[in-house]
Amino acid sequence: MAPKNAFYAQSGGVTAVINASACGVLETARLHPTKIGKVFAGKNGIIGALKEELIDTSLFSAAQIAQLRHTPAGAFGSCRYKLKGLKENREEYERLIAVFEAHDIGYFFYNGGGDSQDTANKVSQISQEMGYPITCIGIPKTVDNDLPFTDSCPGFGSVAKYIAVSTLEASLDVASMAASSTKVFILEVMGRHAGWIAAAGGLAQSAANGAPHIILFPEIAFDQANFLRKVQNTVKEKGYCVIVVSEGTHHPDGKFLAESGLKDAFGHAQLGGVAPFLAQMVKSELGLKNHWAVADYLQRAARHISSTTDVEQAYALGKSAVELAIAGKNAVMPIVVRDSSSPYRWHIDSVELSKVANVEKTLPREFITEDGYGITEACKEYLLPLIAGEAYPPYENGLPQYVTLPLETVAKKLNTVFAV
Amino acid sequence: MAPKNAFYAQSGGVTAVINASACGVLETARLHPTKIGKVFAGKNGIIGALKEELIDTSLFSAAQIAQLRHTPAGAFGSCRYKLKGLKENREEYERLIAVFEAHDIGYFFYNGGGDSQDTANKVSQISQEMGYPITCIGIPKTVDNDLPFTDSCPGFGSVAKYIAVSTLEASLDVASMAASSTKVFILEVMGRHAGWIAAAGGLAQSAANGAPHIILFPEIAFDQANFLRKVQNTVKEKGYCVIVVSEGTHHPDGKFLAESGLKDAFGHAQLGGVAPFLAQMVKSELGLKNHWAVADYLQRAARHISSTTDVEQAYALGKSAVELAIAGKNAVMPIVVRDSSSPYRWHIDSVELSKVANVEKTLPREFITEDGYGITEACKEYLLPLIAGEAYPPYENGLPQYVTLPLETVAKKLNTVFAV
Repeated sequence: MAPKNAFYAQSGGVTAVINASACGVLETARLHPTKIGKVFAGKNGIIGALKEELIDTSLFSAAQIAQLRHTPAGAFGSCRYKLKGLKENREEYERLIAVFEAHDIGYFFYNGGGDSQDTANKVSQISQEMGYPITCIGIPKTVDNDLPFTDSCPGFGSVAKYIAVSTLEASLDVASMAASSTKVFILEVMGRHAGWIAAAGGLAQSAANGAPHIILFPEIAFDQANFLRKVQNTVKEKGYCVIVVSEGTHHPDGKFLAESGLKDAFGHAQLGGVAPFLAQMVKSELGLKNHWAVADYLQRAARHISSTTDVEQAYALGKSAVELAIAGKNAVMPIVVRDSSSPYRWHIDSVELSKVANVEKTLPREFITEDGYGITEACKEYLLPLIAGEAYPPYENGLPQYVTLPLETVAKKLNTVFAV
Repeated sequence: MAPKNAFYAQSGGVTAVINASACGVLETARLHPTKIGKVFAGKNGIIGALKEELIDTSLFSAAQIAQLRHTPAGAFGSCRYKLKGLKENREEYERLIAVFEAHDIGYFFYNGGGDSQDTANKVSQISQEMGYPITCIGIPKTVDNDLPFTDSCPGFGSVAKYIAVSTLEASLDVASMAASSTKVFILEVMGRHAGWIAAAGGLAQSAANGAPHIILFPEIAFDQANFLRKVQNTVKEKGYCVIVVSEGTHHPDGKFLAESGLKDAFGHAQLGGVAPFLAQMVKSELGLKNHWAVADYLQRAARHISSTTDVEQAYALGKSAVELAIAGKNAVMPIVVRDSSSPYRWHIDSVELSKVANVEKTLPREFITEDGYGITEACKEYLLPLIAGEAYPPYENGLPQYVTLPLETVAKKLNTVFAV
């Protein structure tokens, strides 16, 4: 009997290393041709399965697949589409299983965050109920580093390195100019619900200049008077103040700072950006000249400064997902287990998807200094191994050589249109 | 007779490679102990001379000096202080010459943009008039790449590389998500009067995805209706639209877009950011989901991705400045002359400071595509050699090893306070 085919999909916000996980899946599957047939990738994630838009990765050369390891973003496209429960939307699951059955797909590798692990778990259950059991393996991915059980999430180490390096560099810049110019610099970083990325800015403190002086976390409610006092004192003592602020920083009532009421010339609410909001506050309340930056996609796509740890873990988790499937496991997710921080040692284990789904791991209070504005030694010890090593991509003519794969889809076997 | 001492100062906005020029000055001066005594650096630039705050660089080890080559920002501090003409403020020049005389300084190396070259030129003239002639050599520096005569300005090549790489990476990110999420991405870059940095974003177009699709230059007046049509058409055709916008983009009446009337909740004018302004416009006029980033200091401090060309030219210009002084030249600035683009060949020449002062070199019209939204092949041919090579800094524990020099100043010889 020919082996079952597999389906691989990227889900949610993409990262600098999600393609390294894809590389791990595809290269490992190719080592087991008697167990896994073709690997189809979903065009634009799970939507590709629902719309029967499948990319046949067996058409790609080994060289193309290898290039995925150093290419950021989602090579096959991603989406934020979340399948509902079976009760609310049975039709979607039936469609998914029908597409899988039509293309003889027996394995489902879902590369994403908490929501995706939940979906993979449901597909596993429902496919059994429907009499076409699919082996479902989740592969963790999120720059937010907020998945439970795994010590670190692929994508996070690279963002952390980018933010640590950028904070260090911008801090040196401000220090150079502060005597007669910019006194306050504000860097806005991602992490709507968890402060892991903001915390990474604190790693720049190991340099002599002591910056960043203030980190604002989603885990700590914003106290405007206290914050302004801290800014003023820091400028008085150090000559300047560097602030790293999470986009998820919020008022005590839970309202994001970024939603604090900027309006454009027509009176429309402005989209936000917590950095310009704080810049305006520092300017109007303290009269301090400032600059601000919003890293946005630049941080999560910054493959040019990815950490070696992150790339290796992303690949290992993709590889392990395939090995777990071949070993007969189902409804599990491979995870990173830390054996020691110094020297850094880790290995791969796995956890049941049912335990992972919809649990968020925020920054523990003991990783934040008592005043709420910095990170502790325990936090640095956790973070440092994750930014270790520079996994530089190859360059040509001054630019990284990222691969763009052709995304033609295979002929449809179902003759039905499905709207998502 | 003991050789005269020298004074070196960093001026204006700092860059990823201004310290590489400092390294060139200091290492070269040390090779000529019979011609140049000590090199004093101004603490916080020319203000350090006026306040008699001089840093004795002879106290630094060869290893410390060598580390300047890979350290961004201004190691000795910088400022934007511009000396006025002799008529308006004779006192300042007299003070400067008095400090130079007190510390036996006969050479003045001024590392900055157009204003600084103007100052160096005036100091040369006035010091002669005052009977204490100083040899004044300018060293070009500006991320804006707007100095005349020199083919390229140190600092620009590294920003250009950072913006090209970041645009490429963010474009891949948007491409991954566009089918069901973000359709428009806007990256705001520096360059208030010249579009060189924005143009560098266009180098990312060499990749298969065709982004960025729109570049907004200070050289081309903003046409809102045309811009919105172009965004809409691009999203229709390509599925998404990547925009690189110069902070200097302005309306036909000359008013910056960034000043277009955002107000905070209290009715105060907001500081700006042209990216959030355009994001709001794209959202309200076209209803397109978008993301935006403002690179700000991150771009000019990004030593982690500096181009080899830029670092080598920055060093060579610092070295040449000292050699010109030793050869008896005065009131000149070393420049980069391009011999050929492919293969890229350049050499150092020099130009009189009187010709350089206060001339801005903007992007030639033939470097911009006819529709005003892209760069031409001629522009790419000019830019590509400047981003060539990756001059990576050394890393330890995941972070670049940038040097922070102790900035103690020597004992004052003048017993007068001078307010700047």
